[in-house]
Amino acid sequence: MADQFLQDLLAKMTTEEKVAQLTQLATPFFKGASNSGEITGPMVNMNVTDKMVENTGSVLGAWGAKEIKAIQERHLKDNRLGIPLLMMADVIHGYRTIFPVPLAIGSSWDLELAEKSARIAAKEAAAAGIHVTFAPMVDLVRDPRWGRVMESTGEDPYLNGEFARVQVKGFQGDDLRNDLETLAACVKHFAAYGAAEGGRDYNTVNMSERELRETYLPAYKAALDAGSEMVMTAFNTVDGIPATGNKRLMRDLLREEWGFDGVLISDWGATKELIPHGVAANEKEAAEKAIKAGLDIEMMTTTYASHLQELIEEGKVDAALLDEAVMRILELKQKLGLFENPYRGADEEREREVIRCQEHRQTAQELAAKSCVLLKNDEVLPLNKEQNIALIGPFAEGNDILGPWSFLGKKEDAITVKDGLEQKLDKEIMVAKGSDIETGEDTALQEALEIADKADVVVLALGEDSDMSGEAGSRTNIKLPNAQLKLVEEITKLGKPTVAVLFNGRPLDLHGVVDKTDAVLEAWFPGTEGGAAIADLLYGDVNPSGKLTMSFPHSVGQVPVYYNHFNTGRPKGAPDAQIRYVSQYLDSPNGPLYPFGYGLSYTTFAYENFTLSEETLKAGETLTASVIVTNTGQVAGEEIVQLYIQDKVGEVVRPLKELKGFQKVYLEPGEAKTVEFAITEDQLRYHHADLSFTSDPGEFVVYIGPNSKEVEGKTFVLQ
Amino acid sequence: MADQFLQDLLAKMTTEEKVAQLTQLATPFFKGASNSGEITGPMVNMNVTDKMVENTGSVLGAWGAKEIKAIQERHLKDNRLGIPLLMMADVIHGYRTIFPVPLAIGSSWDLELAEKSARIAAKEAAAAGIHVTFAPMVDLVRDPRWGRVMESTGEDPYLNGEFARVQVKGFQGDDLRNDLETLAACVKHFAAYGAAEGGRDYNTVNMSERELRETYLPAYKAALDAGSEMVMTAFNTVDGIPATGNKRLMRDLLREEWGFDGVLISDWGATKELIPHGVAANEKEAAEKAIKAGLDIEMMTTTYASHLQELIEEGKVDAALLDEAVMRILELKQKLGLFENPYRGADEEREREVIRCQEHRQTAQELAAKSCVLLKNDEVLPLNKEQNIALIGPFAEGNDILGPWSFLGKKEDAITVKDGLEQKLDKEIMVAKGSDIETGEDTALQEALEIADKADVVVLALGEDSDMSGEAGSRTNIKLPNAQLKLVEEITKLGKPTVAVLFNGRPLDLHGVVDKTDAVLEAWFPGTEGGAAIADLLYGDVNPSGKLTMSFPHSVGQVPVYYNHFNTGRPKGAPDAQIRYVSQYLDSPNGPLYPFGYGLSYTTFAYENFTLSEETLKAGETLTASVIVTNTGQVAGEEIVQLYIQDKVGEVVRPLKELKGFQKVYLEPGEAKTVEFAITEDQLRYHHADLSFTSDPGEFVVYIGPNSKEVEGKTFVLQ
Repeated sequence: MADQFLQDLLAKMTTEEKVAQLTQLATPFFKGASNSGEITGPMVNMNVTDKMVENTGSVLGAWGAKEIKAIQERHLKDNRLGIPLLMMADVIHGYRTIFPVPLAIGSSWDLELAEKSARIAAKEAAAAGIHVTFAPMVDLVRDPRWGRVMESTGEDPYLNGEFARVQVKGFQGDDLRNDLETLAACVKHFAAYGAAEGGRDYNTVNMSERELRETYLPAYKAALDAGSEMVMTAFNTVDGIPATGNKRLMRDLLREEWGFDGVLISDWGATKELIPHGVAANEKEAAEKAIKAGLDIEMMTTTYASHLQELIEEGKVDAALLDEAVMRILELKQKLGLFENPYRGADEEREREVIRCQEHRQTAQELAAKSCVLLKNDEVLPLNKEQNIALIGPFAEGNDILGPWSFLGKKEDAITVKDGLEQKLDKEIMVAKGSDIETGEDTALQEALEIADKADVVVLALGEDSDMSGEAGSRTNIKLPNAQLKLVEEITKLGKPTVAVLFNGRPLDLHGVVDKTDAVLEAWFPGTEGGAAIADLLYGDVNPSGKLTMSFPHSVGQVPVYYNHFNTGRPKGAPDAQIRYVSQYLDSPNGPLYPFGYGLSYTTFAYENFTLSEETLKAGETLTASVIVTNTGQVAGEEIVQLYIQDKVGEVVRPLKELKGFQKVYLEPGEAKTVEFAITEDQLRYHHADLSFTSDPGEFVVYIGPNSKEVEGKTFVLQ
Repeated sequence: MADQFLQDLLAKMTTEEKVAQLTQLATPFFKGASNSGEITGPMVNMNVTDKMVENTGSVLGAWGAKEIKAIQERHLKDNRLGIPLLMMADVIHGYRTIFPVPLAIGSSWDLELAEKSARIAAKEAAAAGIHVTFAPMVDLVRDPRWGRVMESTGEDPYLNGEFARVQVKGFQGDDLRNDLETLAACVKHFAAYGAAEGGRDYNTVNMSERELRETYLPAYKAALDAGSEMVMTAFNTVDGIPATGNKRLMRDLLREEWGFDGVLISDWGATKELIPHGVAANEKEAAEKAIKAGLDIEMMTTTYASHLQELIEEGKVDAALLDEAVMRILELKQKLGLFENPYRGADEEREREVIRCQEHRQTAQELAAKSCVLLKNDEVLPLNKEQNIALIGPFAEGNDILGPWSFLGKKEDAITVKDGLEQKLDKEIMVAKGSDIETGEDTALQEALEIADKADVVVLALGEDSDMSGEAGSRTNIKLPNAQLKLVEEITKLGKPTVAVLFNGRPLDLHGVVDKTDAVLEAWFPGTEGGAAIADLLYGDVNPSGKLTMSFPHSVGQVPVYYNHFNTGRPKGAPDAQIRYVSQYLDSPNGPLYPFGYGLSYTTFAYENFTLSEETLKAGETLTASVIVTNTGQVAGEEIVQLYIQDKVGEVVRPLKELKGFQKVYLEPGEAKTVEFAITEDQLRYHHADLSFTSDPGEFVVYIGPNSKEVEGKTFVLQ
């Protein structure tokens, strides 16, 4: 129940004023903005009136304390009741201090650092006057063609849920009144945006409700359990109905079943997109569908602002729906303390103090180093400082390493690979571009060959530019561009030890790279401090510890490839399997080139004495799985010990393995630690055909290992 | 209600005898068979006892009147009650006279010839003593990686339903007592086998029930409405439950909702596969799940024979379920007249008379010619007999043109391209292999280049061998093998007019072929008379008229690509679309290289005066769409005129186009015909969110054209 102040306020509002609270507009519409009136492109046709702007409830994409204060100040003058604006923006993997992209953060399996990175982003953004970030994005992803996989932590429901939880905690802290270091979180994109058919952005999503609940929903639920104040709807359809007009998803599931009472916002323009989707004939129908389905705020279209009053007057929409939506928005404003201090957090001095401060950059560098995944290393890494190094490739001096969704990040801030290596070595190194990202010229290739020829070791800095992934960055070809593959081929013909460092936002088909080079370091888009982190890793000052959270397929013809798949009735490799009539491709393995959970270290780890405390488990009891992990190599290192469980027989088919726990263990050379996992009945529940979420008595296999493939299994029985 | 004879018979049967009726075994188990006792491979572990064989109900894969009579004769001696065996076999696209593969037959859009081909197959097989064919296969297919797309008529629910209907009619005729020319049909694979994830055979199928009903089920329903006596279950899961143990699919939908009272059979071994699927712990549980789900006959495993009696005795399975299943099998035997004549149709003299008779071969040649699709023709086809021709490629003299699923077909019977051309030209032609299917040698390439150099025109006969598609023939790479692409590249460098004739069972990525040759004829696997049909087409004695029923993608990275997709909320190419933020691939078109319904002719057709009889339609009324089609070229030809409808606004998203009718029109040069289509309200129904199948008032667009892309549209309103 809202408090008296908000109830009184709502009572004073006209319908027009209420409706406008549900409208979110970008900065050019606001008189106080520096780009005020720069209404271009599709914004021209939005039919935004002065009245709408004066009454509107929130702003999209305002940045910086000065700007935000100016917008708010002017707005409070124009707004009859003095209701402050909510300032919302995309603060995804950092504000100005840019952390690795989320898919890279996922590869760190480091919940503590992930939370810290969200907190740092919140600190910088809060000082800049922002109230809400459109993060975390927790869409489960299985198709590397989709450019937006870079924005997710990967293919696993449990791991995505863990990252969702700590990101929300990192952004929101314990109390949103803390205006120095918190933002309200907005989990997105509800729901199943990551399952776009063909990996083509915004495309149709088609799955059963059981599969939706079992695989795709858990991470959103985890974000809500962690207290995410807002939810953003997805662009896609879910079982034929666009998420933004989907009553079953929003009102029935999210509101009623899950009890979410925060603010629901559409993605950019998605309300009006009910028309091209073909479920609304016009804007008025779109508005009716969206409000009835439970959508509170409409982002960057004006179907509510233009039609909701009329719909209420005609009796087509219950006025109570409008009041509910407005009250949720007012409550969020109150939680953030905006009625007391509409300029919450915005402070130019503090901006100068915290943004890209040393501590923030240090954390970004640390997280970048933990996010890189060493995929291959044939005794060439770590490098030693005596070697004469040639750094070659479009990313040698390239500063496009922040990745998509880093609006306030500046490429000029980026520490490139060259910067990082030269700082590390304290001298100039030989550098050549060799090729552009997508095209190559002979002269550039010749220059590269010349310096490679003089070197003891070659580092190839290769990848996709940041526009090749991210939103609307879908591709049918997931290999490196031919120009770079040619560069790899020509350079490696020299026979020098060669290391590839890869910058990209999706799992790639790495044929033509891994088969030709001696080592491969997947650096993703590592953020502003990337080059320093990579230099630390290449020279062994930091030991690589990242592990993939999305499978790397052999080729695009295999997708989707994910570790938690089903066995089928004719599994390949079964003892009695026929040669042909099994579930396989004639020209490719079924499995990935690199599996979920995979990553190398400069040391080695032995897994021994895997034991289960009991052979049976009952509800309410705990079974302990333990294993001794020993650092059997020469250098200290961190290992990500992974626990998977398989339900041998289900009412519906169950995955061959499901991640149920993991621990990061730091071990000095020769050091051993016992790693223990508690297993309880609630971890064994799944969605049955009737959607009930329960466990079945019977046999389960517990697997422990360094990745999803190399595991040892032990069986217990749930009674 | 079964008649008294069957009721009396059932009453006499022991439980053991009843259970064995539900078991289907292959010929080696039967004492009368020529390969009796050759129990090898997985059959060794089937735990088949002599008693099971004596009591069993049906035989899988017995061929030929002599063999079948011998098996039946011996069985009747051993079987206590003298219950004859049902003889079932895979007669898919012909028995010995092999017709084109079903995907090719689909491309003919010729329902009359398709029915005739089924009737001919039935005639030949009936003379060979077969009672039931495991056809038609009507699985809707959208993924060319799946090898079994060759066995389907394509990607459209309506067209697949039409082919399902005529095939059932062709096989079954009006009366199964007609033992000269009928077989009982068994529609397969129920359900949605064609939607295997990643196009990998037997893999998981994941979709909502609404999508299942809207898109995948209609063709099975059409086969049942046409009277198909049997249904075969699919290998895959449907929403988490293997089809063969899926009560919702079999008992609830097929039996109760649709009223199917025929025999339900598993696919090969699929009952026991409930164990690897992970929904049964052992054979006994598999048997329990399958019988409860509604499966009558278990093919090539013995979970019923080993455990059903025990399950009934333990009270876990109701004995009535067993009786029901047995009665359905006995009823089918009675329908086929087996109690009067257990040797139904089997007649060695008739076999000699009808099998591969001139009439059958003539029809096969005619259907092959109608099934080929001319994809490209830059004024090089038809050839003229004065030209000196070089025939090059692995399919020049290759006789592997029958395609998968042609067990009794003999490659030696096949008319190769060389045979066909030499018969047509009445002289020897220059022929060179140039390359094998998957590997090439320089000497072979040199020979090919030498004869190409001497020729006026080159015909390249290229493709995939029959093992590269078909069951378990999934591939991640859908281009021609590199050896053949190299052959194309080298030959076309000579600059001679070059025609590619393609033999394959799936849509291919044709880059490297269409961009280098002057003409491309998609011949699929055309069957035994293929070479003669191709010669007719190449020399213009038959004018190509086939049109694709499955889209040809640009590349495997695009799949699935199908014409009846949704618009999305951000369609590419919309008037107000942004440049980047639309549903697209950065490196590829969204649409296919060649769309559904596409195919060229040696003449041209003009579409004019498209009119709708009314601007509105009411339930119960008919609206007529008409168009005048004129042959504007120099030769006679057949055009497939296509009608599509779009529902502009639905409760759920609706496809941009759906095929709702087509007509084949034969036109002499200069001739014009008015083509009319009747449109009624029932064609506008679809499955809503609550699964109701109704239409919505509002705007619809009618499209008419020569393929799914080049259409003209007119709007009407459903009132």
